[in-house]
Amino acid sequence: MKLYLDCIPCFMQQALRAGRMATSDEKKIKLILDKTGEMVSTISMHATPAEIGMKVYRIVSEVTGVRDPYKHIKQQHISETKAIYPELEKIVADSVDKLLTAIRIAIAGNVIDLGVKKSFNIVKDVKYILKQEFAVFDYNAFKSHLQKAESILFIGDNAGESVFDKILIKELRKPVKYAVRSIPIINDVTMEDAIASGLDEVAELFDSGCKSPGIILNQSTPEFLEIFNSSDLVISKGQGNFEGLSDCNRQVFFLLKTKCPIISKHLGVEDGSIILKEHEFSETI
Amino acid sequence: MKLYLDCIPCFMQQALRAGRMATSDEKKIKLILDKTGEMVSTISMHATPAEIGMKVYRIVSEVTGVRDPYKHIKQQHISETKAIYPELEKIVADSVDKLLTAIRIAIAGNVIDLGVKKSFNIVKDVKYILKQEFAVFDYNAFKSHLQKAESILFIGDNAGESVFDKILIKELRKPVKYAVRSIPIINDVTMEDAIASGLDEVAELFDSGCKSPGIILNQSTPEFLEIFNSSDLVISKGQGNFEGLSDCNRQVFFLLKTKCPIISKHLGVEDGSIILKEHEFSETI
Repeated sequence: MKLYLDCIPCFMQQALRAGRMATSDEKKIKLILDKTGEMVSTISMHATPAEIGMKVYRIVSEVTGVRDPYKHIKQQHISETKAIYPELEKIVADSVDKLLTAIRIAIAGNVIDLGVKKSFNIVKDVKYILKQEFAVFDYNAFKSHLQKAESILFIGDNAGESVFDKILIKELRKPVKYAVRSIPIINDVTMEDAIASGLDEVAELFDSGCKSPGIILNQSTPEFLEIFNSSDLVISKGQGNFEGLSDCNRQVFFLLKTKCPIISKHLGVEDGSIILKEHEFSETI
Repeated sequence: MKLYLDCIPCFMQQALRAGRMATSDEKKIKLILDKTGEMVSTISMHATPAEIGMKVYRIVSEVTGVRDPYKHIKQQHISETKAIYPELEKIVADSVDKLLTAIRIAIAGNVIDLGVKKSFNIVKDVKYILKQEFAVFDYNAFKSHLQKAESILFIGDNAGESVFDKILIKELRKPVKYAVRSIPIINDVTMEDAIASGLDEVAELFDSGCKSPGIILNQSTPEFLEIFNSSDLVISKGQGNFEGLSDCNRQVFFLLKTKCPIISKHLGVEDGSIILKEHEFSETI
């Protein structure tokens, strides 16, 4: 997905929000906004939002000297979601369609997104999403591909959400490789966060090489690209990864909750929709 | 009211919105955002939002060559509000407290604000505001000052809203001078709009000298300042004028609906509140 003009004011908003996470010094936050403003004229409309997002959060780190402004809140989210983990496992165990319930829970975890949303209530959101209608529901295709798959790539999104991904990965009952961000970026899941979430118990964790809030294929490691191209099934979580992979040259299943009006419009759904979307790719001559 | 950091992303949003009103050429709109971004580092946190707003809309005019992007929509709003004018007059005539009803209607007109809001439904909003509780309600002070006043300055805000101001001005039953913006800025009321609204039938119209979406005293004409200082009563409509006058050195009555979370916070009220506020000024030694 390419950048929309609407993304540009949103980058300023994100710069302000991340600046406030990193410091209470208003002069430094103003400097972050100044530098983000200066950066606007260098933005190509052919870039993806994640590429620009990366630049914004780099400015925040440079100005404040804080490498990981979201560190404590990520730890808090992981701890909070781990506390409700047994209850979520029970919900899956008691459900008629365990796989679908686990998918819903993994999507519910996607509300833990500090790039676009200021507040959320995870318990309330889980309960709602367990009953919410999907706006895009390629579940039959997903089940069919899962059945045949011998290797699965799961591209993680946010920390905290990663605990919910564990539920789904267990339910997939196949070997899973779980890709994390290379450095702390917003509240996205890093290797450290994935281990703290207990994901190492159910998947093989590896570093995607990406330093952006969403996968950018040409900035990923050769290892990531090899796994991305060769896996039988690719599951991509969240908006940031969707932005980076929505035009990619292979089949991908996107799992996300839409929280940005531009992405919702791009997908042709209402804001706040839950999505299980098959991205099909067929080579043309 | 001084600038808040939150105003800066909002300027980018306003630049985008006004750019889209002026042109459908995406490259020009991107250039507007580039120039607005570059301008951020020149913003002093001691400026008022209206001063920066003026710069943003100047960029839009310079890039697109369109001096008045909101011209047609202003004409449409004036025409729509004039169509319901007789009905509003009847509501006032049939009410127990005619002055208060006219104040409510004048505030209802304040929803016609294209600087901060994308959509509104004027008939629905009027009906709602006629019953809405005031969050700040200095009505007794207002009545008392009105009774003694022999000269009133009324500072207009948006076109369309100006038609509703006519209802209130008639109900004030005192000589009123009505100040308009010096040039088209967003959908604010200019001399041409005020005449189209029929305000010349009930007030003496004059140019404030201001080219910003809100009064800036040191950019107003000597005539405006003389009237501002000497009038027995000053009524200021809307958020833009509130921003410019909230720290001024004379008594003012502010009539507005809060549509911006920062102004609501500044006033200590919920967003969407209706306000009749006396700004008191007592000289200290």
